[in-house]
Amino acid sequence: MAARSLTLTALAGLPLVGPGDDLAALIVAALRRNAISPEDGDILVIAQKVVSKAEGRLADLRSVTPSPRAVALAKEVGKDARVVEVILSESSEVVRHRAGVLVVAHRLGFVMANAGVDQSNVGGEEHVLLLPRDPDASAAALKAALDREFDAELGIVINDSFGRAWRNGVVGVALGAAGVPSLRDMIGEPDLFGRPLRVTTVAVADELAAAASLLMGQGAEGLPVVHVRGLVCDAPALPAAALLRPKHMDLFR
Amino acid sequence: MAARSLTLTALAGLPLVGPGDDLAALIVAALRRNAISPEDGDILVIAQKVVSKAEGRLADLRSVTPSPRAVALAKEVGKDARVVEVILSESSEVVRHRAGVLVVAHRLGFVMANAGVDQSNVGGEEHVLLLPRDPDASAAALKAALDREFDAELGIVINDSFGRAWRNGVVGVALGAAGVPSLRDMIGEPDLFGRPLRVTTVAVADELAAAASLLMGQGAEGLPVVHVRGLVCDAPALPAAALLRPKHMDLFR
Repeated sequence: MAARSLTLTALAGLPLVGPGDDLAALIVAALRRNAISPEDGDILVIAQKVVSKAEGRLADLRSVTPSPRAVALAKEVGKDARVVEVILSESSEVVRHRAGVLVVAHRLGFVMANAGVDQSNVGGEEHVLLLPRDPDASAAALKAALDREFDAELGIVINDSFGRAWRNGVVGVALGAAGVPSLRDMIGEPDLFGRPLRVTTVAVADELAAAASLLMGQGAEGLPVVHVRGLVCDAPALPAAALLRPKHMDLFR
Repeated sequence: MAARSLTLTALAGLPLVGPGDDLAALIVAALRRNAISPEDGDILVIAQKVVSKAEGRLADLRSVTPSPRAVALAKEVGKDARVVEVILSESSEVVRHRAGVLVVAHRLGFVMANAGVDQSNVGGEEHVLLLPRDPDASAAALKAALDREFDAELGIVINDSFGRAWRNGVVGVALGAAGVPSLRDMIGEPDLFGRPLRVTTVAVADELAAAASLLMGQGAEGLPVVHVRGLVCDAPALPAAALLRPKHMDLFR
């Protein structure tokens, strides 16, 4: 097998993104400034925060009246009851909670802390940022705009950082994807000795999300777009929703 | 912030590794053949399988007598009772099981399927491969040998692919590390608006493991070593054991 390599470049100079901004146009401009001309098979990993901001996914806490359930839960976990109200409104289920921790199933199926509701980097004490309404659709729209601009078949991953069961620390995870084999099924491919492999389905979009996260820097919004070149993968494209294990198949909630 | 980039190169031409092989010497030779001269801060991500093989971590199933517990559990999960016996001998706890699934806490603390006991790519129906006895120590020994050879301060990550709670597909995860900030603590670093970030500890070694996994290819042993250049991270080095959440802190077992 020949050597293969993967190059990830975090784009410099993307401006702060605000509600209503044309994110695809901002990314195109940043790619040009960074002298990157995307080609077929290249992938752009984009931080959830800038997608949510461009989509105006802000909630104003001053207009939130917490329900009795939110007030009670807020006391238990030690959070602002209005934020807990927003979290619950974004969630289908509280999976675990204790002081400082609120793990929920987001209405889209992500099991994650606080339903992704985020108070950092929003630029106002009284606002919180929500996940995009439909991250796979956001990725598909960005793909359509960028494919057209560069006359190429690109992949898009929208990533966020999630905590995990059993392991410390957060890692980059795919919330949305388009033009990318989010899951790559390798069940049945023979190993080097011809013995059929029993498993293995690889969460390619999550690995891309994690790889890009190494360059983005947590919390900062300075480097929210990472260009990836070199992924060799001819598996069919699947949205990031394919990464979600249905509850009835899940042993851990 | 300036553009930053990360380049990952999977080394071509590493021979099949067997018990007693000097893995560091094989990696040095492969780096030279690939015209890569590692420098300070470069990282090598090495697949667990080749580390385990070099360390001779094979169990011969013909010499395994399954206990009554292993026989009963093997029936429930639908596996070879001798393999289950080996899995139990590598584990401190069965976390979940059902037909086809056996999630345990490995004696080193990893919550994972089958304690990492692997029948693929071993080259004999009657042998299984175990995890390295102490992957952080394996990483430290490889680092010492490679640092000496290249007169540089390198990082080493030994990776494997794990399934996760809540999400489909496996991703690369760090089993062992040396010279790498496996966890990078970003609690308290201000965001762009000066608001202190509440969280965030990033599992850098897991993100490196996932990134390298994109090039390694599941199951195949052809590309088990990936060279990484460009990670900017001045956090202190921590072994991969730092990634393990102690059981009393874990909400999911």
